[in-house]
Amino acid sequence: MRSLLLVCTWMVATSLQAQSQPEVLMPVPKSIEWTNDPFRIPADFSVNIEGPDGLLNGSLGQYTQGFIQRLGSLTGYLKLPTLPTQQNAYAHLTISIELVSSVELGVDESYQLTVEGQGVQLSAATDIGAMRGLETLLQLVAYDAEGPYIRGVRIQDEPRFGWRGLLLDVSRHFMPVHVVKRTLDGMAAVKMNVLHWHLCDDHGWRVELKNSPELHEKASNGEYYTQDQIHEIVAYAAERGIRVMPEVDVPGHASAILTAYPELGSKDTTYALQIYAGIFDPTLDPTNEATYDRLQIVFEEMATLFPDGYFHIGGDENEGKHWEENEEIQAFMKEKGYADQHELQNYFNVRLQEILAPLGKKMMGWDEILDGDLPTSAMIQAWRGWIAEPENLPHARAARKGHQVVVSMGYYIDLLLPAESHYLADPMPVEGALTEEQAENILGGEACMWAELITPASIDSRLWPRTAAVAERLWSPVAVNDVASMYRRLEVMNRHLELLGLQHLSFADQYVRRTAVHAEDQATLRTLLGVCEPMKGYTRNTNGTLYTVNSPYNLFVDACTADASQALAFKQEVEAWIENGDPAAAEAIRSRCITWSNLKTDLEFFQRIPEGKALQTHLKGLVTLSQLAAQLTEPGAAENADLLEKAEAALEVYKTPQARTDLMLVPTVQKLLDHIKS
Amino acid sequence: MRSLLLVCTWMVATSLQAQSQPEVLMPVPKSIEWTNDPFRIPADFSVNIEGPDGLLNGSLGQYTQGFIQRLGSLTGYLKLPTLPTQQNAYAHLTISIELVSSVELGVDESYQLTVEGQGVQLSAATDIGAMRGLETLLQLVAYDAEGPYIRGVRIQDEPRFGWRGLLLDVSRHFMPVHVVKRTLDGMAAVKMNVLHWHLCDDHGWRVELKNSPELHEKASNGEYYTQDQIHEIVAYAAERGIRVMPEVDVPGHASAILTAYPELGSKDTTYALQIYAGIFDPTLDPTNEATYDRLQIVFEEMATLFPDGYFHIGGDENEGKHWEENEEIQAFMKEKGYADQHELQNYFNVRLQEILAPLGKKMMGWDEILDGDLPTSAMIQAWRGWIAEPENLPHARAARKGHQVVVSMGYYIDLLLPAESHYLADPMPVEGALTEEQAENILGGEACMWAELITPASIDSRLWPRTAAVAERLWSPVAVNDVASMYRRLEVMNRHLELLGLQHLSFADQYVRRTAVHAEDQATLRTLLGVCEPMKGYTRNTNGTLYTVNSPYNLFVDACTADASQALAFKQEVEAWIENGDPAAAEAIRSRCITWSNLKTDLEFFQRIPEGKALQTHLKGLVTLSQLAAQLTEPGAAENADLLEKAEAALEVYKTPQARTDLMLVPTVQKLLDHIKS
Repeated sequence: MRSLLLVCTWMVATSLQAQSQPEVLMPVPKSIEWTNDPFRIPADFSVNIEGPDGLLNGSLGQYTQGFIQRLGSLTGYLKLPTLPTQQNAYAHLTISIELVSSVELGVDESYQLTVEGQGVQLSAATDIGAMRGLETLLQLVAYDAEGPYIRGVRIQDEPRFGWRGLLLDVSRHFMPVHVVKRTLDGMAAVKMNVLHWHLCDDHGWRVELKNSPELHEKASNGEYYTQDQIHEIVAYAAERGIRVMPEVDVPGHASAILTAYPELGSKDTTYALQIYAGIFDPTLDPTNEATYDRLQIVFEEMATLFPDGYFHIGGDENEGKHWEENEEIQAFMKEKGYADQHELQNYFNVRLQEILAPLGKKMMGWDEILDGDLPTSAMIQAWRGWIAEPENLPHARAARKGHQVVVSMGYYIDLLLPAESHYLADPMPVEGALTEEQAENILGGEACMWAELITPASIDSRLWPRTAAVAERLWSPVAVNDVASMYRRLEVMNRHLELLGLQHLSFADQYVRRTAVHAEDQATLRTLLGVCEPMKGYTRNTNGTLYTVNSPYNLFVDACTADASQALAFKQEVEAWIENGDPAAAEAIRSRCITWSNLKTDLEFFQRIPEGKALQTHLKGLVTLSQLAAQLTEPGAAENADLLEKAEAALEVYKTPQARTDLMLVPTVQKLLDHIKS
Repeated sequence: MRSLLLVCTWMVATSLQAQSQPEVLMPVPKSIEWTNDPFRIPADFSVNIEGPDGLLNGSLGQYTQGFIQRLGSLTGYLKLPTLPTQQNAYAHLTISIELVSSVELGVDESYQLTVEGQGVQLSAATDIGAMRGLETLLQLVAYDAEGPYIRGVRIQDEPRFGWRGLLLDVSRHFMPVHVVKRTLDGMAAVKMNVLHWHLCDDHGWRVELKNSPELHEKASNGEYYTQDQIHEIVAYAAERGIRVMPEVDVPGHASAILTAYPELGSKDTTYALQIYAGIFDPTLDPTNEATYDRLQIVFEEMATLFPDGYFHIGGDENEGKHWEENEEIQAFMKEKGYADQHELQNYFNVRLQEILAPLGKKMMGWDEILDGDLPTSAMIQAWRGWIAEPENLPHARAARKGHQVVVSMGYYIDLLLPAESHYLADPMPVEGALTEEQAENILGGEACMWAELITPASIDSRLWPRTAAVAERLWSPVAVNDVASMYRRLEVMNRHLELLGLQHLSFADQYVRRTAVHAEDQATLRTLLGVCEPMKGYTRNTNGTLYTVNSPYNLFVDACTADASQALAFKQEVEAWIENGDPAAAEAIRSRCITWSNLKTDLEFFQRIPEGKALQTHLKGLVTLSQLAAQLTEPGAAENADLLEKAEAALEVYKTPQARTDLMLVPTVQKLLDHIKS
């Protein structure tokens, strides 16, 4: 009897699960129980916030107003009560919090959410936790013939990591205030909590400083944030529970600083802002006391602009060429008994830490700063995933030594890799690399958005939706790692993010409209955008010199994105077929391929647009490879030597990038071919 | 022999004309001669500016850099020389100007442009004229199998009117800095030169004032421009040859001002910002000296923020209710011998003029201020096109009295009328209304973008492309008035404007993606967007109370635009058929109608989206009316009583707005029916 009951319970649970596990949440909460008791949203939907006095005028009050406005868009209700109340026992949504938290590392972001027919309860320890819960709530809004409702659910949620950041490089290409703000909106929507603001590099200094005006006046090309704008952005972030950590990248990446203060350089020369991509030689002179005097002044003023407890000093990619060439620096090293440049840089880092500590700032740097004998009070950002065997990669090494660590290995979204690759990169070092105690030094991770090849117009299409996959990795339990589910939910988030004003999808629309007028030509471009991706890694920009900071970044490659949708769907079908040999899967592949292989490649408009010939080549590749792929899935393909040879030859031809993009059928058809031949 | 030569010359001219009159320019230049000698754009295209020293660092230098960047996007060239030079006799484009002008009314904006195989010459009296010419030049860029080129042309151009403005209401809905900037980019692209900034109204005060902080602190909902931001925008406009004229709307439209300073009101009460649309009663007390003291302080500070010589004091829609109810004000009027509120308002206006004149500002106001006995030194903005017979409309009356006049009658783009209606509205009063001398008082016109029903996300879709039609009306010769040509060129501009970052087309894309997932559903929404338009005039917002300032403005009606593209094409086909009875035209109508009539109306997704039922009704209307329209164009339709009756009945049903939009087939099918029956 007991076992029968168990079976019944299991059956009910399974059937409920099958029936009502919508894939709409991202990041996935720690614990979730779907129920069949949704809440119907009425046109007078009201929100009450319980907690300390004055909440309505604080961040949570503001955030809730934004929530109500977005709810208006989702429901179509024209006059939802705009303002939450603090004294309404009958509100449809009750938010209760215990305290208003300052925005700092370690804040409690947990929340509990219950949606049932009679109402919605959101409770959290802090206002910031409640904000995270409101984002979950919006993702639960749905619509049916009876109108809008919120899916019935009981959620207990908290983040796996307390540091879930996004690095925004505004030096290579400056990003205006509104772009930073909409990026913060996107971050809040996926529960990220640190904006790592890369404010200077070889291409420009981006902060107005009253006490060092040479920096923004001489080294910014006129594009920098005023102090008012910085206050505005820091406040905007704080209202979303997001910290803002500034980075001043030294001693390398110093072309901008040295454009303003050439006398602080390691070489006796003048300097200018860089316009190409690459690693450049200009480096601060660590043996010159004036260098520290200036950094003292700079850090002091920046400390007042950025209230966060952490301050990033860069420290990466200093190849030390100008140090080697400078006799006085060499003499200094000899005098100090330094064996190599790393020890000299370590001396520099320790000096910076001495400046920062009295300002109440904990120092953070890229993992190169580990190379010296750095005090463990400095925090490490691990990024070089290729320099050692897994257990000795920078994050493991740093954590073992006792440094706090933020991980960016695997999260460089400027590489334009598939979301999958970021999603499956866990911030934790391989098992066995760290003790349990050491593992606690891994505080989280940061997606990195370097800006060599992006502009304010295109940045959204690089950030989103892939950054949401990183956000989930950092928030959700480690066991949440189903790639197929991630991609399905990413599609939902993709549209959800547009409601915030993000332009990640419209950028390609604009390219298509600008490039082609006739419907057939536009459809062809859309087809190509669905199967081509920007060249990956740093191969697009050959030697870093194909583009300058002033190049146009709205050509075909810019309209292309990672995870080209149709190529990804094709890849998934092929992988499914390879795995299970299902004839239905083969049919799906053939059906898709027949559509592709019927495309016209001789469109006249290819003669009338920039890059037309290159696009035409990709289109021919699409037609040819899809014809071959269809044939490869047919019975007997393995014995058809002529077909196999033709496929090899075609892959060889069409693997060549065109218009700085790859035709993404190539790796998939290669996989298919390899499978057939095996 | 002579006549034969003439014929030959005529033939050559005609054939050249037929072959090479591309419809790509907007506004149309004063004089244009197309040649067959295009300039091929090389990858090292260089620009030299001849004129006074220091040009490169001035507005024209900046503008030219922006021109080069846009040229990069159009050509696909990655590394066009970024900076113009001032000493290069061999440049491909030579810009020569005589002087750098301040941005003020009356500046010479003429230019001459010659594009020929050997190079491009742009000459202008002023830097601002050269900017206008650069916009023309960009519109001439084309692409063929040999690569990018500039169409061969000789152009002499100058504006018909010196005042070509856009009023931007930022009170009803605040528009952030970046939205104002991209609006200025759009204005410059269509050669407009005045931003009339409507900075306060009943819904909010939008300027930070140090000496009257109550205004932005108490009466802005937190959304206002800081003084830094105002400087930034005024400078941004000036760099594009655009003046910025502020408006402080008094004595009516004063809810915001009185929220800050209730003691200046005509009624002893407290005030609050309005959230609905309408004309409200709060009015400044013109008999209280404190009113003038405050306005003196406000105007003084604003005069420093806005260098333009004109200052708009509103003056519209004061219905005087609170004046009537106030005994002291009535006593004041009696004492002064004023017969009505107009005389009291005139007293008020004269007092304001006495404040503004010493500040170097010429006063401007809406045409209501004409109602008193106003000195002719005040400038009039004519807007009430319904209050008199044509020869006595406000612009004619004001110009006859000797006032300078700017015309906005016919240019209220918030009414969502077709571009045609604005395009055909000439700023000049009817013939005979003015002497030649009086006619010179008509300085130009302004499109008006009132913001009750728009947000930063939707504003572009309201402004563009229709504002370009107004811009052409104000720039091009009066004889340029071919509506069909205007619509064809507007389509070109529509895409061209996207290159500036304007979001006018992507807003609807976002609506579609957010609302529907499946391709068929999305296609259906796009079809509906192509045939539906927002309810016109002020009918959408019933009594002004259907919406508040906090309503969502991204529903179906917001995604719809004036001049719905497919409905417009259908209308043009029907009008052509009615005019010439051409069987080919009938065939075109039937072909379009058959596609429409085959649409599926029972899509399941209508059950799952806000407004689904309303949209389904429109779709049924589209299917029904297109079936009927196809039949109406067939021979014998006039005798088919059953058909005519069915058509009448269907028109009656489907003329009802749905989701605050009109199905734009209705008026066209009505026209078709009327024609058949006549």
